[in-house]
Amino acid sequence: MLDRRALVLEEKGRLSLRDLDVTEPLGPRDVRVAIHTVGICGSDVHYFTHGAIGQFVVRQPMILGHEASGVVIETGSEVDDLAVGDRVCMEPGIPRADSHATRLGLYNLDPAVRFWATPPVHGVLRRTVVHPAAFTFKVPDNVSFAEASMVEPLAVGVHAVNKARAAAGHVAVIIGAGPIGLVTALAAIAVGAGKVIVADVDDAKLALAVRLGPIATVNVRSIDLPTAIAAETGGWGADVVYECSGNDRAAEGVFSLVCPGGTIVMVGIPGAPIRYDVALAQMREARIEHVFRYAHVFPACLRLMSSGTIDVKPLITRTFPFAQSVEAFELASQAPKGEVKIQIALA
Amino acid sequence: MLDRRALVLEEKGRLSLRDLDVTEPLGPRDVRVAIHTVGICGSDVHYFTHGAIGQFVVRQPMILGHEASGVVIETGSEVDDLAVGDRVCMEPGIPRADSHATRLGLYNLDPAVRFWATPPVHGVLRRTVVHPAAFTFKVPDNVSFAEASMVEPLAVGVHAVNKARAAAGHVAVIIGAGPIGLVTALAAIAVGAGKVIVADVDDAKLALAVRLGPIATVNVRSIDLPTAIAAETGGWGADVVYECSGNDRAAEGVFSLVCPGGTIVMVGIPGAPIRYDVALAQMREARIEHVFRYAHVFPACLRLMSSGTIDVKPLITRTFPFAQSVEAFELASQAPKGEVKIQIALA
Amino acid sequence: MLDRRALVLEEKGRLSLRDLDVTEPLGPRDVRVAIHTVGICGSDVHYFTHGAIGQFVVRQPMILGHEASGVVIETGSEVDDLAVGDRVCMEPGIPRADSHATRLGLYNLDPAVRFWATPPVHGVLRRTVVHPAAFTFKVPDNVSFAEASMVEPLAVGVHAVNKARAAAGHVAVIIGAGPIGLVTALAAIAVGAGKVIVADVDDAKLALAVRLGPIATVNVRSIDLPTAIAAETGGWGADVVYECSGNDRAAEGVFSLVCPGGTIVMVGIPGAPIRYDVALAQMREARIEHVFRYAHVFPACLRLMSSGTIDVKPLITRTFPFAQSVEAFELASQAPKGEVKIQIALA
Amino acid sequence: MLDRRALVLEEKGRLSLRDLDVTEPLGPRDVRVAIHTVGICGSDVHYFTHGAIGQFVVRQPMILGHEASGVVIETGSEVDDLAVGDRVCMEPGIPRADSHATRLGLYNLDPAVRFWATPPVHGVLRRTVVHPAAFTFKVPDNVSFAEASMVEPLAVGVHAVNKARAAAGHVAVIIGAGPIGLVTALAAIAVGAGKVIVADVDDAKLALAVRLGPIATVNVRSIDLPTAIAAETGGWGADVVYECSGNDRAAEGVFSLVCPGGTIVMVGIPGAPIRYDVALAQMREARIEHVFRYAHVFPACLRLMSSGTIDVKPLITRTFPFAQSVEAFELASQAPKGEVKIQIALA
Repeated sequence: MLDRRALVLEEKGRLSLRDLDVTEPLGPRDVRVAIHTVGICGSDVHYFTHGAIGQFVVRQPMILGHEASGVVIETGSEVDDLAVGDRVCMEPGIPRADSHATRLGLYNLDPAVRFWATPPVHGVLRRTVVHPAAFTFKVPDNVSFAEASMVEPLAVGVHAVNKARAAAGHVAVIIGAGPIGLVTALAAIAVGAGKVIVADVDDAKLALAVRLGPIATVNVRSIDLPTAIAAETGGWGADVVYECSGNDRAAEGVFSLVCPGGTIVMVGIPGAPIRYDVALAQMREARIEHVFRYAHVFPACLRLMSSGTIDVKPLITRTFPFAQSVEAFELASQAPKGEVKIQIALA
Repeated sequence: MLDRRALVLEEKGRLSLRDLDVTEPLGPRDVRVAIHTVGICGSDVHYFTHGAIGQFVVRQPMILGHEASGVVIETGSEVDDLAVGDRVCMEPGIPRADSHATRLGLYNLDPAVRFWATPPVHGVLRRTVVHPAAFTFKVPDNVSFAEASMVEPLAVGVHAVNKARAAAGHVAVIIGAGPIGLVTALAAIAVGAGKVIVADVDDAKLALAVRLGPIATVNVRSIDLPTAIAAETGGWGADVVYECSGNDRAAEGVFSLVCPGGTIVMVGIPGAPIRYDVALAQMREARIEHVFRYAHVFPACLRLMSSGTIDVKPLITRTFPFAQSVEAFELASQAPKGEVKIQIALA
Repeated sequence: MLDRRALVLEEKGRLSLRDLDVTEPLGPRDVRVAIHTVGICGSDVHYFTHGAIGQFVVRQPMILGHEASGVVIETGSEVDDLAVGDRVCMEPGIPRADSHATRLGLYNLDPAVRFWATPPVHGVLRRTVVHPAAFTFKVPDNVSFAEASMVEPLAVGVHAVNKARAAAGHVAVIIGAGPIGLVTALAAIAVGAGKVIVADVDDAKLALAVRLGPIATVNVRSIDLPTAIAAETGGWGADVVYECSGNDRAAEGVFSLVCPGGTIVMVGIPGAPIRYDVALAQMREARIEHVFRYAHVFPACLRLMSSGTIDVKPLITRTFPFAQSVEAFELASQAPKGEVKIQIALA
Repeated sequence: MLDRRALVLEEKGRLSLRDLDVTEPLGPRDVRVAIHTVGICGSDVHYFTHGAIGQFVVRQPMILGHEASGVVIETGSEVDDLAVGDRVCMEPGIPRADSHATRLGLYNLDPAVRFWATPPVHGVLRRTVVHPAAFTFKVPDNVSFAEASMVEPLAVGVHAVNKARAAAGHVAVIIGAGPIGLVTALAAIAVGAGKVIVADVDDAKLALAVRLGPIATVNVRSIDLPTAIAAETGGWGADVVYECSGNDRAAEGVFSLVCPGGTIVMVGIPGAPIRYDVALAQMREARIEHVFRYAHVFPACLRLMSSGTIDVKPLITRTFPFAQSVEAFELASQAPKGEVKIQIALA
């Protein structure tokens, strides 16, 4: 008998672990996956606590969760690169195959993309899901399900460093030591930053950051960041600045950190328009890149985990069984000190 | 006997055409040039009317003018690619040869650059100037001195389109139909924009724009620009948006014009920080490029003029003799309707 | 009653204009197009004269033709951007929608692509064809059907210049003044080459080239090309070299033409491996790009035709009615002097 | 009293450690450096054994050595970023400051570059050298002199990966496990290759390679490389192929290894032109980059060593005192199994 148990956001502030039917026919190029581990993302928590993110409003019960790994249990008739029993992780957004953006390779920018746990699309805190084989990726043997569920958040950082395309040994500044800042720091080290400086206001977060690799930290409550970066770079500035805080004041300061010809990548999402000193950016001919989720990076993330270049395990700070999913969300919604990624194990 | 006549900005608001000694020894890699034609730039006018631009303040008499062409009259001992009699135009900024920026090829970003008619450096509204051969460029026979003096302002537009590096047949929007907007429009057509849309609030300026090539215009007083661009592009957006107005509200609107994966080039310099909708730029993964003057483009501009691909002659709307330089600046300072570039002929 | 007339290559060397049934159901995202004009490509002629190109062998009767324009006569249920009566041209290769290459935006490199008039896929020298709307492009009013049929060959040149991504005013050398060399020359001028030099062994072809725009020519029978390029560039070399001849000796010479940091684009297809002087290419840190057909450029080509930036009409040197298709191919197979593109008009 | 001892290549095959006067005035932007450690490069050995490399012929006694670190002992009057006592390493090529290539940032391609131990320019197997401050780089405290002398060979690998500009997690193949192949492997891992496969014919070299990081190896004597790469990549091919062997047959095979849209970097220098299958490269739209030494990477190499991202120590397999320099070269000229980098310590 089919287990129809799911973690359902009934409405803002109200979660149930209960049975819910989701009918999903298996298309010829789809696979059916038994979910193993799901990480809790800040967006999941935000839907729980606020019932909406921007234009996306929870108007009917919706299953949460989009950072997922599992095992293939059924394959469509035309699937030839995945087999029953394969350990996999999945990219949660499915674009329209022949949209203009998708054909250009920019499928993450397709306005018609259907993304797990973004209303009205159900997420994957449930027993099984049907997914296109093209967005389902085999996990190497030496990568655990828990790590495989971290591919989705790591993908944000990897996509950000791909946008920067910085030269080997560059100097990178990462503003914000939350989960996105930390995966971006891991990605920056992985692609050859010769010096990584992480800035935040929270010493506990910075203390975690330094454990991830050769990272220097700046607590901007006590130290002036432009002065610190100038000192570290002989007055030249950072080659790349990753804004991962979403904080207005932090984001406004990026132009005084970057070197002539340098790059700024806007990863965090400020809640409102920020102040933009165009003249200052012009004096340095800064390039600003913006990222929206990620594209084409899941296999790359898995390879970097498998080779040992990126180790996400220090970021997984707590794991709950499926039966305690509601408790897991309650904890996550309190943003507890010292927690980075809370996961739910279904198997 | 040496003619020491020069157009001197004595102080804010006061110009004299008078003798002024400028001692300039000829180095081994320098040339001495007899000035032929000098165009009046908005920055020249601004020093005249305001006595300063940002941190650059006129504190002692300074010769104006930096858009210049002329004839080589003397060459340094090591100069082998220029000869007496060569018709030339000159790049007005001289960087430090071994600064970090210069070595990287980013000489326009060298903070130590010395730029004509930027205090305290004299400009070239005078009879002769000594200049490094490396920043002096031979003018093809079929390009006039008047056109050669237009290389400097054209260089801004050409540098901007080089930053965009757009694909053939792209859709370009140019905000602002002033001199910088118009040279950017010429440059955008030259590098293969398949559709160029120029936006401004002034019908007279837009009328001039349409005479320069296959250009569509939008008067944003009466037409909503995002709606117009959406209509022209089937809802997709422009591939490149060149902000050339320096107007705050115009500059803030660029993010709603650009297509997914598109590019914004900030050419105009807003007087104060503008509002920056980061989330909107992220949804489209826009790339923003900033330009500061130009680098490495003078020979390219001359080739494009010589081949007939770019015709700057319609932009030269008035020419004064050297003796009437003060009158020329008085006219220019009134920003008269229908004038784009006013030049002064010294020969 | 349906007109089933088609130009069929029965086998190597034998063409018939006869009835042939091609059953084509209309999918929800397809359109049915009445063919108006079809250009004859060198590959069509090669199948006629040799019965094969590389691994692609004509083993059963195949309709020729892949450079086509026409009018939409029926639309699938989900097509919303094309309507009956629209004048269109079509991209002849249809990739698999979810192949790895296609998802990356490199659909032209998908090994599973189905391409018109490439065995065993029928071409379009027939009355109607069913085609995906995503590869069917609306033709602007001021572009004729004859010009619209030239989009396909022009696309090769436009794709080549997109690969080069050269700066404004660059110096381009084009080796080979055949149809591909000429469309590449048109594309190079369109994207801002400041100097274009076309090299060939045939004065008649070079004479045609100079009529297309600001083009200099070199007949390499009498003039040494490296010497000529050095003279034109003050010894520096060309920024971009487009090899469009497919000739072994010509292709081997590209490395002595290119400037330090310059680019070579291999467009022509030599019949066998050529000699490659790696050390010479290294001394200049040349970048070599290779092109295979084209991707994402049909709308761009149409815009460049519509704006007047590219005029392909001088390349259309002869038009035959459909009833004389066999005669058209017989003429084309003789490679007559002075002919560039021969077209067949079906309407 | 000045120590004028130097390792002099008197002529092909004859080395002396003897006194030689090299008069070097200290310019205002120069530093004088006491040499500490010098690595022996294959080119040094080649001048010793053959008396020439290509056009560069040893016609008079020449000091060998160009991989050097040391201590600043005197600074020119305008040097402000280096001080006496600073531990440094030096870039051995000095370009002309205002050549066309140098101004573009491509100083390594300046034909007028003067490079240590390239006839007739002396190398640095001597007590002191005068060098421009702009090409002298401060060594971090945690990087030894021995490692600092490895910056020069490492720079070749780092420049090669900078040319590739591959995305995070890419698959890299490195052909050749000699010193250049190994530094390229280190650099490829440093910039985020997710999988690195090193190919060679020598099991001993491959055994060393696997000790450098997450590297898989293929001995092409027993295993077909295209088959192995296809197996590793699900038939797709490698994202980047670094040809570091200089072997003709190996270099000819690169096109069958690379994925659609992939990149080939030619690092090794084949002794003669190789066979180039253009059609195969076109089917994959391969991009080929060529490297000539390096540019702008010394500070980056030092940062990557200092952060621990790149560890060159396993490559330093033997160190001789200065007094035994001739013995060091005699050993090096025998290309002994198991040796990678032999260094000479002068202090």
